[in-house]
Amino acid sequence: MKEIQKINIIGTGNVATHLALAFISGGKEVVKVYGRNIRRASGLAKKCNASPTSNITEIANSADIIVIAVSDDALGEIVDKLPIGDTITVHTSGSVSMDILKPLGDNFGVFYPLQTFSKNRDINFKEVPLCLEASSLKNLEKLKGLAISLTDNIYFINSDQRKKLHLAAVFACNFPNFLYSIAEGLLEVNGLSFEMMKPLIIETAEKAKAISPLKAQTGPAFRNDKKIIDKHIQMLSENDDFLEVYELLSKQIIGLKGTKHK
Amino acid sequence: MKEIQKINIIGTGNVATHLALAFISGGKEVVKVYGRNIRRASGLAKKCNASPTSNITEIANSADIIVIAVSDDALGEIVDKLPIGDTITVHTSGSVSMDILKPLGDNFGVFYPLQTFSKNRDINFKEVPLCLEASSLKNLEKLKGLAISLTDNIYFINSDQRKKLHLAAVFACNFPNFLYSIAEGLLEVNGLSFEMMKPLIIETAEKAKAISPLKAQTGPAFRNDKKIIDKHIQMLSENDDFLEVYELLSKQIIGLKGTKHK
Repeated sequence: MKEIQKINIIGTGNVATHLALAFISGGKEVVKVYGRNIRRASGLAKKCNASPTSNITEIANSADIIVIAVSDDALGEIVDKLPIGDTITVHTSGSVSMDILKPLGDNFGVFYPLQTFSKNRDINFKEVPLCLEASSLKNLEKLKGLAISLTDNIYFINSDQRKKLHLAAVFACNFPNFLYSIAEGLLEVNGLSFEMMKPLIIETAEKAKAISPLKAQTGPAFRNDKKIIDKHIQMLSENDDFLEVYELLSKQIIGLKGTKHK
Repeated sequence: MKEIQKINIIGTGNVATHLALAFISGGKEVVKVYGRNIRRASGLAKKCNASPTSNITEIANSADIIVIAVSDDALGEIVDKLPIGDTITVHTSGSVSMDILKPLGDNFGVFYPLQTFSKNRDINFKEVPLCLEASSLKNLEKLKGLAISLTDNIYFINSDQRKKLHLAAVFACNFPNFLYSIAEGLLEVNGLSFEMMKPLIIETAEKAKAISPLKAQTGPAFRNDKKIIDKHIQMLSENDDFLEVYELLSKQIIGLKGTKHK
């Protein structure tokens, strides 16, 4: 089976950029980068020594794989525009079924990196979990070959599991980050630096790596320490939003006590 | 001014243990360890080459400082039992005012390490923020001298700020950990390993170290992606608790959009 070597990328955002650079680090070649906005396509293409294009038909037959790394909303539009072909085509979304790619032919799949990507932040791709799914075993093998060049963390999961994974990721990433921003807000109004909070945030995350979070749970709510909880509620009395979050999460953490620790 | 060298510790829990070991690493001497339970006191004393005691009057005059590292609830009881004296006495609580120690004499303060401590987890104390407060400038200088032997992160904050800091820590530590446990639960019922989620959790925490969390916010709620949010709500329809958390946090994150990014 021919190994995937040449890659065309659709998209110019964070996922497209991080993936493209990881492919190159893995010894692959990025041939073309498509973007609606040719300037953004040129920007990414330059970083990958590839050609930029804003003509999607150019993407179809010049590589071993087409990787669509666009927002979920734009995905349908891309599928409508891409010509049917033999080139295996994958999307990178956590929340869209693989079947959205069916109109493109027989060879398709999903190449979902479970990570939060930002501009100006390097990611060690070797540790990024890559979730693969494909329209056939042969295609899955191909994707696996490509994935191995990027990461040691490969998972084979179906569309339904991937959606659940994506939902769990919202709880493990987007929501904790929002809570950090609440902590930042509380410190700021009291003349305290968010800097102080950073070792605690890192240790809490590191602990979740080492111990089941259910076992690692601490805090006034977990101890059902009503005196402190009441003091906290009083301190939050001027911020309804923060108070609502505090009360709901505390209530549920108090309820954990009976939960069986693994 | 005489430097603090000899330390008596009241308490045998996680904070007492981590502090005692950090003192020793910092070249200090732990003389006595008090615990109501003499077996627990002996356990910690052995680790520090100290003498255990369950007689609190023995603690009063044999060291340069008495460090009370017990739960907030037990603190009042300890203060009632401790004889009045000249030895500077500190507590280690984030949520109790310094003034609880006033009955013990003129020399007292707070020595609050802002970190989550667990059994069997080593902490690099050099990075732990230590929050100091004292009954006089002279005592504050003494505490600073002791703190320097432990950490590079020293803060001088008053009781009121410390309470706010402790509240912020609940948002930055206890609550994110609870959300990790929800993610773990969601993965488990879908036959997926929590292992997959760990690089994302670490990167989210690392990102908060590098960028303001408000700037780092991503996810369907931040994009106000109603299609995905609705799908997620559907997936959570069988778990009222998880659903309640999802809806509240998503609602508030959607509201962030207008917030000024720093």
